[in-house]
Amino acid sequence: MERIRLNLTEQCRTYDILIGDGLIPKTGMLLKEHQMKGRVVVITNPTVAQWYLEPLLKSLAAAGYEAGVVQVPDGEVYKSLEEASKIYDFLVESRYDRKTILIALGGGVIGDLAGFVAATYMRGIGLVQIPTTLLAQVDSSIGGKVAVNHPNGKNLIGAFYQPRLVISDVDTLKTLPDRELAAGMAEVVKHGIILDENYFSLVTSELERIRERDPAFMAFVVAGSCRIKADVVINDEKETGIRALLNFGHTIGHSLESLTQYTMYKHGEAVMLGMLAAIRVAVRFGCLPQASFYDTLETTAKSFGMPVTIPGLPARDIYDMLMGDKKAEYGKIRWILPVRLGKAEIVTDLPREMVETVLREMGAV
Amino acid sequence: MERIRLNLTEQCRTYDILIGDGLIPKTGMLLKEHQMKGRVVVITNPTVAQWYLEPLLKSLAAAGYEAGVVQVPDGEVYKSLEEASKIYDFLVESRYDRKTILIALGGGVIGDLAGFVAATYMRGIGLVQIPTTLLAQVDSSIGGKVAVNHPNGKNLIGAFYQPRLVISDVDTLKTLPDRELAAGMAEVVKHGIILDENYFSLVTSELERIRERDPAFMAFVVAGSCRIKADVVINDEKETGIRALLNFGHTIGHSLESLTQYTMYKHGEAVMLGMLAAIRVAVRFGCLPQASFYDTLETTAKSFGMPVTIPGLPARDIYDMLMGDKKAEYGKIRWILPVRLGKAEIVTDLPREMVETVLREMGAV
Repeated sequence: MERIRLNLTEQCRTYDILIGDGLIPKTGMLLKEHQMKGRVVVITNPTVAQWYLEPLLKSLAAAGYEAGVVQVPDGEVYKSLEEASKIYDFLVESRYDRKTILIALGGGVIGDLAGFVAATYMRGIGLVQIPTTLLAQVDSSIGGKVAVNHPNGKNLIGAFYQPRLVISDVDTLKTLPDRELAAGMAEVVKHGIILDENYFSLVTSELERIRERDPAFMAFVVAGSCRIKADVVINDEKETGIRALLNFGHTIGHSLESLTQYTMYKHGEAVMLGMLAAIRVAVRFGCLPQASFYDTLETTAKSFGMPVTIPGLPARDIYDMLMGDKKAEYGKIRWILPVRLGKAEIVTDLPREMVETVLREMGAV
Repeated sequence: MERIRLNLTEQCRTYDILIGDGLIPKTGMLLKEHQMKGRVVVITNPTVAQWYLEPLLKSLAAAGYEAGVVQVPDGEVYKSLEEASKIYDFLVESRYDRKTILIALGGGVIGDLAGFVAATYMRGIGLVQIPTTLLAQVDSSIGGKVAVNHPNGKNLIGAFYQPRLVISDVDTLKTLPDRELAAGMAEVVKHGIILDENYFSLVTSELERIRERDPAFMAFVVAGSCRIKADVVINDEKETGIRALLNFGHTIGHSLESLTQYTMYKHGEAVMLGMLAAIRVAVRFGCLPQASFYDTLETTAKSFGMPVTIPGLPARDIYDMLMGDKKAEYGKIRWILPVRLGKAEIVTDLPREMVETVLREMGAV
């Protein structure tokens, strides 16, 4: 088992991210080792519960924890204030006090929703994240961002709230659909490109082991990404500086998602296309002298069945959509561009023509 | 104008509490002096708005701030998730971004509700408190507790979230009903009894000036309480240690409120009775050798028209209700008892008979 310690000086808080296989059946013991006391409530959804709820509850019972369960239907639409409100009702009616520990067992939706409830019930109760998708393990469970959606926009109601423990059991990846694995891989390679050349090279040289969900290698992959993201979060908890680098690939990615009304691309697929485009832009702009890793990235995308071209979408519309992005401060788009493999920078003045040319190279019209 | 600086090391945050008369018409300038940028939204209620909204908006406009207004109906029942949700809708629909500043203009209900929205909209936006009741000026606006009520309990959904500025304009006390002034006075004398003998003596020797809302003296009263509470909050932001002392009078106070279904006593009145009872208990228990300040407290209560006896309520029921209090950890009641004027301690093992005897001395049956 790998142990990564997040030390957040801003909040005088430290917590562990535990990564390995066979961890869910040890949860009760791990909670005890981390001095957690109190009643426990597990928030999960039926898709995840069918596989992992029983071993989790067994383990909690064996360690002497009383555990309640709230199941939320599966889907982004349930990451809402209404669903949070139902969880509050359950907590209040069952008289859970401020020493309660909320366990989020699931992917990003469950983690964000349960995290928001933990942040706000009785002004904050204990939170343990057990992410069960690759995307949640390498991305959303780290950094303390919790939120629910507003009908008019994603993550508009939320908080920064750190968990007391993250348990990433890579065994859960065995039941993860291929397209969900691919979505996580987009963030994995992103971490490598912007901050760690070595990690990128190691990960992309063992794609077969990833597709097979080899536990030892997946633990290496998840731990590597956690270390990179944890470093960024420690240095910039509230996203005022270098945390912006994590938006690499997300500028055009968001634009593609919006333009196609979130129906054509999964988030990871859109981000992958956004990264490919950003690398091309960086070469054209002149800040990236050489981009041999472009081919590696393209091969990776293809081997996970992800698209590498943007056929049919108008380049002009993709660019127009960029301006509406919430991260476009004062009407300026903040581009994250690689300057070499393992290093990226923020660039704000890119000619529109240059971006549209790149999009057309990739199949846009 | 008095300026008290709260330095919260836990959150690397510092903010000012400004106290004086004629401050609301200077709000725009004060915001500018504190380097606040962005669009402004004022949350208030019609009772407060009739007096203070126009001068506030004038002042904001004069300083170049664009300001929206959301009015919430007057009353504790509107400190709800539903009302917070309506404010989110307004903010989203009018495209307020993460640089928005929310101004809470009103008493504790407005401060708590607007504070909760500020804590959670886009993971936290700027918050300025302009408390307009004595209770809010000396108590709820300081310390960063924000919350909404759940149908089954007060303040069950909330956060710790510090404002960027507090502006306490004592002119607002001129329109405050007498019973509301009295409610604030209960907290004022509480601060003196538990932490500052001198403050208690000065305040209780000038009751006439308080009843007249003399601006200079009210500024002294508010500043004194703010200093005491700020000291406590700085040392114990999340209420794990000495912040518990602020619950002096609240143990029996809450019990009296619950037992009478919140219809007989205002919060301040119940706290006043709780303090009188706690002093009597302290004498009987032996931790308080001499309680000459009991008479001063009783005189103060009477001069503000507050009850000093508990006729008709059964002592046994009052005690039983104590056990259901959310602060009774592991079934133990944590009493805050004075050991001399200006100093209090936590006591957990008080005989039931002793407490009931005191309640009967005060008129309980």
